[in-house]
Amino acid sequence: MNRTPHVAVVGATGAVGVEMIETLEKRNFPVGKLTLLASARSAGKKLKFKGTDVTVQELTKDSFQGIDIALFSAGGSISKEFAPIAAAAGCVVVDNSSAFRMDPKVPLVVPEVNGADVKSHQGIIANPNCTTAITLMALYPLHQAFGVTRVFASSYQAVSGTGAAAIEELARQNREWAGQNRAWDAARLDSAPSVYPHQIAFNVLPQVDSFLDTGYTKEEMKMENEGRKIMHHPGFRASVTCVRVPVFRAHSVAVSAEFSRPVSLAAARAALAQAPGLDVVDDPANKRYPMPLDVSGKYNCAVGRLRLDCALDNGLCFWVAGDQLLKGAALNAVQIAEELLK
Amino acid sequence: MNRTPHVAVVGATGAVGVEMIETLEKRNFPVGKLTLLASARSAGKKLKFKGTDVTVQELTKDSFQGIDIALFSAGGSISKEFAPIAAAAGCVVVDNSSAFRMDPKVPLVVPEVNGADVKSHQGIIANPNCTTAITLMALYPLHQAFGVTRVFASSYQAVSGTGAAAIEELARQNREWAGQNRAWDAARLDSAPSVYPHQIAFNVLPQVDSFLDTGYTKEEMKMENEGRKIMHHPGFRASVTCVRVPVFRAHSVAVSAEFSRPVSLAAARAALAQAPGLDVVDDPANKRYPMPLDVSGKYNCAVGRLRLDCALDNGLCFWVAGDQLLKGAALNAVQIAEELLK
Repeated sequence: MNRTPHVAVVGATGAVGVEMIETLEKRNFPVGKLTLLASARSAGKKLKFKGTDVTVQELTKDSFQGIDIALFSAGGSISKEFAPIAAAAGCVVVDNSSAFRMDPKVPLVVPEVNGADVKSHQGIIANPNCTTAITLMALYPLHQAFGVTRVFASSYQAVSGTGAAAIEELARQNREWAGQNRAWDAARLDSAPSVYPHQIAFNVLPQVDSFLDTGYTKEEMKMENEGRKIMHHPGFRASVTCVRVPVFRAHSVAVSAEFSRPVSLAAARAALAQAPGLDVVDDPANKRYPMPLDVSGKYNCAVGRLRLDCALDNGLCFWVAGDQLLKGAALNAVQIAEELLK
Repeated sequence: MNRTPHVAVVGATGAVGVEMIETLEKRNFPVGKLTLLASARSAGKKLKFKGTDVTVQELTKDSFQGIDIALFSAGGSISKEFAPIAAAAGCVVVDNSSAFRMDPKVPLVVPEVNGADVKSHQGIIANPNCTTAITLMALYPLHQAFGVTRVFASSYQAVSGTGAAAIEELARQNREWAGQNRAWDAARLDSAPSVYPHQIAFNVLPQVDSFLDTGYTKEEMKMENEGRKIMHHPGFRASVTCVRVPVFRAHSVAVSAEFSRPVSLAAARAALAQAPGLDVVDDPANKRYPMPLDVSGKYNCAVGRLRLDCALDNGLCFWVAGDQLLKGAALNAVQIAEELLK
């Protein structure tokens, strides 16, 4: 790999793409050249990178000649079509979609958990589901300490996970409510939602992604499926409910975790305190715990509300929050690119 | 008991008190006379009941002479002081606070679960915690069918549970954000919160009620403690995370429940379909599931997202939502009063 690689961002104008560009700059990734790719609709737009304008180009089959690393975040169908083309052109793809995550030939990587897995790539490396990545930042250190067997988790997912249009939908709905000077008990708006099937402002939606025949959503199965692959732990079980909440950009997850070895709060705190990329924010007496507003814009995830589980003989409860656009997407992708250069 | 009882509402001007008055009227409770009681600050206010103005009186030790039933919702300290006085005056108190719920002499009642328990009262009957009551509306029918052993639950609790000032705080914060024409990523407001320790708009707070030494909040222990008493099930275990979300008036709960007998989706659906006070809203193909906006103002709770639990060999996941001010408070209190008249 070129030590100052030519990097492409595919989906450069999307909510995650913008964060990828900023993260490459902020982390001083050794970008030799930056190419920004997007749909024809966005081609011609200019985005700043290190103080200079970079013009967005239309993504085509010929876009990847000479590119070393391509960070994809343009949705699963774009990834399915263009990631193999990019890989065939000699580019290493870091793909933020779910298209290749469970492909046995494709490493699925959270660098703090299984960074060494990037070495086995065959041209494509997958970036995990956002809620899974954020949960594993706290769960994996506990797994190393005690051996996790299963988790029960409920998510509180921000609209950023659905993209820029969803962010605008929540903003628009809040402006509508305030602009009409509505009462608190007139929270149901007149305008129809367009991104979500139901109003998200002043509401929570127990649906993230589409439904499977089992009654689970695809999103809800990602923690078990991707968790097994990332942790190299085929017996890991996860019962998950994924819920969209009216928050702009950071996800939170409430977790009950059962372990195979005896747990203690002291040992759990010690394991979490030394975990990379994770802040322990757990001071109930002073009402300090992780919250989406506090982790928004931060690279580190935060864990708190640590306690012995009431309903498991060998379990811990915790609450973890992380910026969906960063650790849940752009940051993790750039960290994977950093692993490639090691 | 007088068949057309003289009813008092204590805390009549609060968020729950207002709903109690409306619920007495809407359910055509046979009110012989209505007395509205509140703090000196609210005395003199007039509230409508069946088209006529009723003047709020100051709550004093002498307020309960001649009153048959008093619905209390003025906080735990008011209940502790005045409920025994009311009971000594021959009044039956239905208390919405947590003050007497775990007192062995005090029945704790969800009428659809243990309505007969009201008969054993000694002057005070307790209304359960809102999240517990709403959860039990779906859990108890499943318990009857399969025998619940433990649950893992995460709540999505509306600000109405904290009272009128909290409702106003969420409204004010949203108006501030919209009025300043802020961007989505400038969601942290300049104004300090006053009711909650942190901003609730565009945020979620993993704290409801105060913390215990174990790291749990008091609220989080209520489902296990009150659930055991209401279901007459001393072995019931509950691992709960309670979270405040920027929703105005209905709570939602994600539940994983383990049972002692084999479960099936068909039998679970049948049990839920015939449960009183509960609507089954479970049609993923059409994106229909319970949501706070849909159950707001409704007497019935709603259950959906029913599925076999991924991490339990004998478990079910479900999602239940209910109006915190109604089934979580005022409605349940009036239903208890109705039981008293049976």
